[in-house]
Amino acid sequence: MTLNEVIKDKSRIYTGDNVPHDYLYDEYVGTAPSVHAVVLPINHDEVVAAVKYANDHDLKIIARGAGTGLSGATAPQFNELIIDLSLMNRIHGLDEKTMTLTVEPGVLLHEIQEYVESRRFFYPPDPGSKNSSIGGNVATNAGGMRAVKYGVTRNYVKEMTVVLATGETMVLGSLNVKSSSGYDLKDLFIGSEGTLGITTLIRLKVIPLPMHKLSYVLAFEDLQEATRTVAAILQEGIDPTSLEFFEREMIEISVKETGIAFPTEKGKSFLLMTIDGDSMDHIYARGARLETVANAHGVVDFLTLESAQLESDVWKLRDSLLSAVVNYTEQVTMDETVPINHVATLYAYTKDLEAEYGVQLMSFGHAGDGNLHTCVMRGNLDQATWDEKRHLILDKLYAKIAELGGLPSAEHGIGLIKKPYFEAMTAPVNLEAMRAIKNAFDPHHRLNPNKVL
Amino acid sequence: MTLNEVIKDKSRIYTGDNVPHDYLYDEYVGTAPSVHAVVLPINHDEVVAAVKYANDHDLKIIARGAGTGLSGATAPQFNELIIDLSLMNRIHGLDEKTMTLTVEPGVLLHEIQEYVESRRFFYPPDPGSKNSSIGGNVATNAGGMRAVKYGVTRNYVKEMTVVLATGETMVLGSLNVKSSSGYDLKDLFIGSEGTLGITTLIRLKVIPLPMHKLSYVLAFEDLQEATRTVAAILQEGIDPTSLEFFEREMIEISVKETGIAFPTEKGKSFLLMTIDGDSMDHIYARGARLETVANAHGVVDFLTLESAQLESDVWKLRDSLLSAVVNYTEQVTMDETVPINHVATLYAYTKDLEAEYGVQLMSFGHAGDGNLHTCVMRGNLDQATWDEKRHLILDKLYAKIAELGGLPSAEHGIGLIKKPYFEAMTAPVNLEAMRAIKNAFDPHHRLNPNKVL
Repeated sequence: MTLNEVIKDKSRIYTGDNVPHDYLYDEYVGTAPSVHAVVLPINHDEVVAAVKYANDHDLKIIARGAGTGLSGATAPQFNELIIDLSLMNRIHGLDEKTMTLTVEPGVLLHEIQEYVESRRFFYPPDPGSKNSSIGGNVATNAGGMRAVKYGVTRNYVKEMTVVLATGETMVLGSLNVKSSSGYDLKDLFIGSEGTLGITTLIRLKVIPLPMHKLSYVLAFEDLQEATRTVAAILQEGIDPTSLEFFEREMIEISVKETGIAFPTEKGKSFLLMTIDGDSMDHIYARGARLETVANAHGVVDFLTLESAQLESDVWKLRDSLLSAVVNYTEQVTMDETVPINHVATLYAYTKDLEAEYGVQLMSFGHAGDGNLHTCVMRGNLDQATWDEKRHLILDKLYAKIAELGGLPSAEHGIGLIKKPYFEAMTAPVNLEAMRAIKNAFDPHHRLNPNKVL
Repeated sequence: MTLNEVIKDKSRIYTGDNVPHDYLYDEYVGTAPSVHAVVLPINHDEVVAAVKYANDHDLKIIARGAGTGLSGATAPQFNELIIDLSLMNRIHGLDEKTMTLTVEPGVLLHEIQEYVESRRFFYPPDPGSKNSSIGGNVATNAGGMRAVKYGVTRNYVKEMTVVLATGETMVLGSLNVKSSSGYDLKDLFIGSEGTLGITTLIRLKVIPLPMHKLSYVLAFEDLQEATRTVAAILQEGIDPTSLEFFEREMIEISVKETGIAFPTEKGKSFLLMTIDGDSMDHIYARGARLETVANAHGVVDFLTLESAQLESDVWKLRDSLLSAVVNYTEQVTMDETVPINHVATLYAYTKDLEAEYGVQLMSFGHAGDGNLHTCVMRGNLDQATWDEKRHLILDKLYAKIAELGGLPSAEHGIGLIKKPYFEAMTAPVNLEAMRAIKNAFDPHHRLNPNKVL
């Protein structure tokens, strides 16, 4: 079988010098010398044929979506066959009875959000990049802003169709709400970063769109007080939709990037929260309890973002943080997580390292989940100093995260670049179990080889 | 190594004629001729030692908890070593900061509920048997009354310590809220019915105790209308804590058993619901929306159970249903599930079978999850007729469930007795994948052999 028999339309096959540079280049890994080919299937059968072709030619395979990954998980290394799923981008429809949305893996997150919200339904997972593909979201078990109340991608995948390394098709999960019927294969595949199978169809759970919402900014003078307040807010049962943390120096970078003003001059550390509910009265009652908790923690400004413009502005500042930091300086942005009782400790430790090494470390993130994005910033360090200090700082930070019972990745995935830390932080017996599963499903390590494990 | 070296205290070892009959007998499977021994470890190290002993003597192992299972999952067949975990029943404590409760597997469900609720926290999973052990709940991914709003056991296990077939110890999951760090081994073990490992410690997620709640009974004249109303209630975003269904003939069995009166003479089919919320006003507002939906579906009685006594009585009738049916007649009680849009179809089909075979079929269950408990009742049929008709009816029912995209077990597990149906209803490629996982973790099929797969 030739590639032209696998993918009927030649315009959906790239080989040799025709392979666009984007497929060879990964921001975190560099440029690969070559790939066998890039194919863009438009349906399940073409994916199956491509996998069989790879088997026939003993090729490794990388499946990729929108290319917004942050861990080098789709970087080629072994002259792979790249299966780009971005043309499998149809929304098959919303079944209101079962509250299920059926989509192909190349559909983008913002397309899903717009589609369901216009029909008064809600897909809660909200990772930073709205241009990420849902297939990629499932592959990394993506999290985002609303996980503290609604959970992560895992909690919204009811069923997925995958092509295994052999070319066989398997349907994981079902439209049922509950199951005690055999091993949970679906959750094994979610978050496996394309190493166990290639997803070709996904059925997502959606919920009724929350009727009302309101956002709040809490400002604290003490740099550590914002993170210290998080556990108290959660214990109080305020059940925020989002519970985001950032420091003033961080948000100032976003202010410069966007030209949007931040609404308070007070405070050095901040929580940005949304509460949703059945009625504004319901939300105000929760807001009042929130204010009581905030006061007990010495809040210096408590802003209720009643104006839609103001709410939109502040969230735009938050949403722009990552790209603002990327434009500000070369940096490493982590997506570490620790148990919620250790967020303040971890954050304080980043400030210790900042002082010790003279390298700027700033943090923002999903404080309500214990998931920070710590950014190690190059600033004006020369290359050698940056290389040396960056490695020392990352080694110490990941060691501290492990000591606190944390994990290297909360939502971006391990991919290639976090593998050394992941392996160092994970018990050998667990790594061995994961390798046994990989070998059971993909004995020739055909699917996304050398990633995660 | 002898058993006396494994378990220090002889009173926690039974062998030969001293093995209590309870360990040999299973209601659904019958009586096994023998077991190698029964041991009752009191800590993790004794479980490890027992597993190593079984390896040394090439014995099969069954781990068991409170013995309340309904699928024959702990029935001996191969002269197994029984590891009874009921003495590992300590509650290690509640960490309010991370909202985590740490328990040993032998702790009973009601003990957990009482412990956390007295501290103003809440463990939502609520399977029928409050005397089931948490280890058993995890092994079957038990569901129960409150899954429609809060999810099942799976959603509340943060971390578990397991002993593998080799005797190695593995910690699955963590206290972190999110993870994109490697394969999800924890969810693979949850619901695996003791076939992959033996759980010795569990860290459970708890949430703040809901502040207020109120229950409602909706009566419908049409036998099928109750199940038809379920999807509309869920789409309306009323988000009930429980959404239970039963028919009048069924609840009358419970009325006779308990002597408690059912509060309405109207209607043939019923929904029993609870709504929880921040305030009674919040609940009343949802109740008003519920009444609108109910009226659109021709409700003939809509009862708000304002009196605590009345609420408690009606829930006692519901909670007593299973034991009342068991006392009423010999029967098979299923725990099938179908997608929510097919609940009414499945229920109607049970009535078709009832008419066709002259065997009474009644249903109750967690309608909000699409999870019915259909009871096939012997009544006064002679043994031969009962055997013949029961098999015909079950075959047809499970075939219908499969046709509707359903599953044989929503919450009790496959065990031994549902295995033929499970295998018939599951795609060969999925069964093959499950077998590959079993072989990877337990190549000698030492742990709970011949169960599930």
